[in-house]
Amino acid sequence: MYTAIGYAAQSPSSPLAPMTFQRRSPRADDVVIEILYCGVCHSDIHQARNEWGIAVYPLMPGHEIVGRVSAVGDQVSRHQVGDLVGVGCMVDSCRHCAACRQDLEQYCLEGPTMTYASPDRIDASNTLGGYASSIVVSEHFVLRLPQGLDLPSAAPILCAGITTYSPLKHHGVGPGHQVGVLGMGGLGHMGIKFAKALGAEVTLFTRSLAKAEEARRQGADHVILSTDAEQMRAAAERFDFLLDTIPVPHDLNPYLETLKFDGVHILVGLVEPIQTPVHAAHLVTKRRVLAGSMIGGIAETQEVLDFCAEHGIGCDVEMLDIADINQAYARMIAGDVKYRFVIDMATLRG
Amino acid sequence: MYTAIGYAAQSPSSPLAPMTFQRRSPRADDVVIEILYCGVCHSDIHQARNEWGIAVYPLMPGHEIVGRVSAVGDQVSRHQVGDLVGVGCMVDSCRHCAACRQDLEQYCLEGPTMTYASPDRIDASNTLGGYASSIVVSEHFVLRLPQGLDLPSAAPILCAGITTYSPLKHHGVGPGHQVGVLGMGGLGHMGIKFAKALGAEVTLFTRSLAKAEEARRQGADHVILSTDAEQMRAAAERFDFLLDTIPVPHDLNPYLETLKFDGVHILVGLVEPIQTPVHAAHLVTKRRVLAGSMIGGIAETQEVLDFCAEHGIGCDVEMLDIADINQAYARMIAGDVKYRFVIDMATLRG
Ligand SMILES: [Zn+2]
Ligand SMILES: [Zn+2]
Ligand SMILES: [Zn+2]
Ligand SMILES: [Zn+2]
Repeated sequence: MYTAIGYAAQSPSSPLAPMTFQRRSPRADDVVIEILYCGVCHSDIHQARNEWGIAVYPLMPGHEIVGRVSAVGDQVSRHQVGDLVGVGCMVDSCRHCAACRQDLEQYCLEGPTMTYASPDRIDASNTLGGYASSIVVSEHFVLRLPQGLDLPSAAPILCAGITTYSPLKHHGVGPGHQVGVLGMGGLGHMGIKFAKALGAEVTLFTRSLAKAEEARRQGADHVILSTDAEQMRAAAERFDFLLDTIPVPHDLNPYLETLKFDGVHILVGLVEPIQTPVHAAHLVTKRRVLAGSMIGGIAETQEVLDFCAEHGIGCDVEMLDIADINQAYARMIAGDVKYRFVIDMATLRG
Repeated sequence: MYTAIGYAAQSPSSPLAPMTFQRRSPRADDVVIEILYCGVCHSDIHQARNEWGIAVYPLMPGHEIVGRVSAVGDQVSRHQVGDLVGVGCMVDSCRHCAACRQDLEQYCLEGPTMTYASPDRIDASNTLGGYASSIVVSEHFVLRLPQGLDLPSAAPILCAGITTYSPLKHHGVGPGHQVGVLGMGGLGHMGIKFAKALGAEVTLFTRSLAKAEEARRQGADHVILSTDAEQMRAAAERFDFLLDTIPVPHDLNPYLETLKFDGVHILVGLVEPIQTPVHAAHLVTKRRVLAGSMIGGIAETQEVLDFCAEHGIGCDVEMLDIADINQAYARMIAGDVKYRFVIDMATLRG
C-alpha cells in the first residue's frame, strides 16, 4: 500500500479538504503514477455535491490526470518507470463486451469503472480521483503522453478534449465542412481548436458579443450572436455539424434550422430533458440528426493526445494551488475561468 | 390540353367532390399518364382540410399514383406509350442543387414541386394530384413499374413504401440487426415488411395486444406491448434501430432506452414538437441518435419498386370507389383501414 494525500469531500455539503488515504499496492497490470497536474472539470463539482445522486463519500474528484510512472506491476508492458502518462475519466471496464471490443469502453455494457466514486472491479473499493499525490491504474487505462505536449495544458485533453474530439471524428468532420460550436467554455474552446485542425470552417454561436474577438483568437472563422434572430435566420441551412457544448437546457430549434439537410447536431454537454421540445419537423423534413456523445474510448483518447502534440493543441488553463480548490469551484460556477483550472500538484506536497 | 376529371376540395371545410379541369399539353419532357389506381395517404386529409396551413384550392389530393402512359413529349426517352408507371409525392425540383445532384430531390434546396397544391415551376399553375383520370409529369419524376407488381398494392409504395424503405437503407439496416417498428398503420406495416426483407429481426411496438397476431402475419418476429413497463424494461438496450411511424406526439424516452449504444431512433411520421421532451442523457450516455427522414429521392423510389417486385412485397390495401372518398377519410381518422385505401380509378370513369 502507498500512503497518499489528496483533497476530498466528506459529504455533499462539506467543502473539499485534505485527506490522507491508502492507494493499493500495484496488481500485476497496474501502473503507479505520481500525479503532477490535474484538471478541474464541472463534473467534479456535480459529483462532490452529489448533484447527480450517484456520489460515494469520501469523494475525491479529478479525472484529467497527468503524471509520471513511479512503479509498475509484474506484467505491465506498455509503460515504464519514468514515463509521462495520463489518466482520464475511466480506470477500468469489463473488457469483453461488444462496446469494449470496439474500443468504446465508455459505453461498456456492464458500465465502465469511473476514475472516482465508482466501485473497483476487483476489490469493490470506492475509486478516488486525481486531486491527489498518486494514483494506481491498470495499464490499459493509462495513456502515453507524446513528446511536445505542455503538461498542464494536456491534462484537460483527457476529458474536455476527448469529449469534443471524439464526436467530430465519429461523424467525419473534415475539410469543406461548416462546423458551428455552441458555447465557448472548457469544452467549446477545445471544439473550436479541433474542428479547425480537422480542416473545417468554424463558427462560434454565443450569446455574448464580447466573446467574438476571443473566439477568433481560438481559431473561429465567424461568430454568430445566437440571441440575434436576424443573424440566426441568415445562417439557415448553413452548417454540416453543430457541436453543442451548452451544459444546461436550451432551445435547440433555432440551431437545428441552421443545419443543412443531413446535418448533425451533436450534444456533448446536456444531460437533462431538452426544453423547449425539439420540433420533429426540423429533423424529418431535412433528414437531420440529433446525436449524443460521451467522452471517448481509450484508443481514441490516445489518438487525441497524439493529435494535440502533432497540431500544437492544448487547453487554455489557469494554474491552481490545490488549497484554493473551493474558491475555484465558486469561480467556475460563475463562469469565471479561461478555460480550465489545472491543479499544480506540487502545491499539495509543498 | 386534356380535359380530365377528378375529386377535389374547394375549401378547407368542403368535402371532396367531382371536378372537371384541364391537364396541360405535354411539354417536350412530359409523360401523360392515364391513372389506374391512387392510394389515399393521411397527408391528403391534412392538405384537403388545410391542417398544415399550406393548402391551395381547388385542392386535388393523391400522390400514390399508378397508371399507363398514353402520350409522351418529343424528348422523352425513359418511358413509352403503354408502359405501366408510377408517380409519388414530387413532380419536379430544381435539378441542380446539392440535394438534387445527390438524387435527394425531396430535400431540394429550392423546394421540390409537390404532386398537389404546389406551384408548377414553368407556368406557376397549382399542381393537382392523382384523384383524377390523368396526370402530366416530367419524365424524371415518373417511375417504371417492374413486372410482377400487383398494381393496387404497388400504389402506396410511392409514399408509404419509400418513406419507410429510405431510412432503413440510409442507416444500413441489414442481417443481424434488431429493428423495432413503432406503430402498425400504412407506414408501420410496410416498415415491418422491409426490415424483414432486408434481413433484420423485427419487433413491433404496439399499445394493443390485439395486434400481436396480425403483426406476426406481417412478418414481425416479436411484439412488445409498449404500455407494459415490464416488457419495455426487459427490452432495454436491445435494438439497433427503431422505425417510428407514430404520427402524433408521444414520449420517445422509453423507446430510446431500448436502443443499444450507437442505436438510431428514426422519425418518419412525427412533424410536431416532441412531447414529452427527450432526455438528452439517453442520447449522450450511449451515443444514440435521433434521426428524421422524409419520403425518398426518385432514384431510390425506383429502387424500392424494384425491391418490392423482387421480394413480392406490396401494401395491404382496401379498394375504394372514389365516390366513397369522404367516408374513407372518416374511417382513416378512426383508424379503420388495413392498411391503405386505394382508389380504383375505373370508378371515376364508370
Ligand atoms: Zn470531466
Ligand atoms: Zn465492456
Ligand atoms: Zn403520402
Ligand atoms: Zn434542387
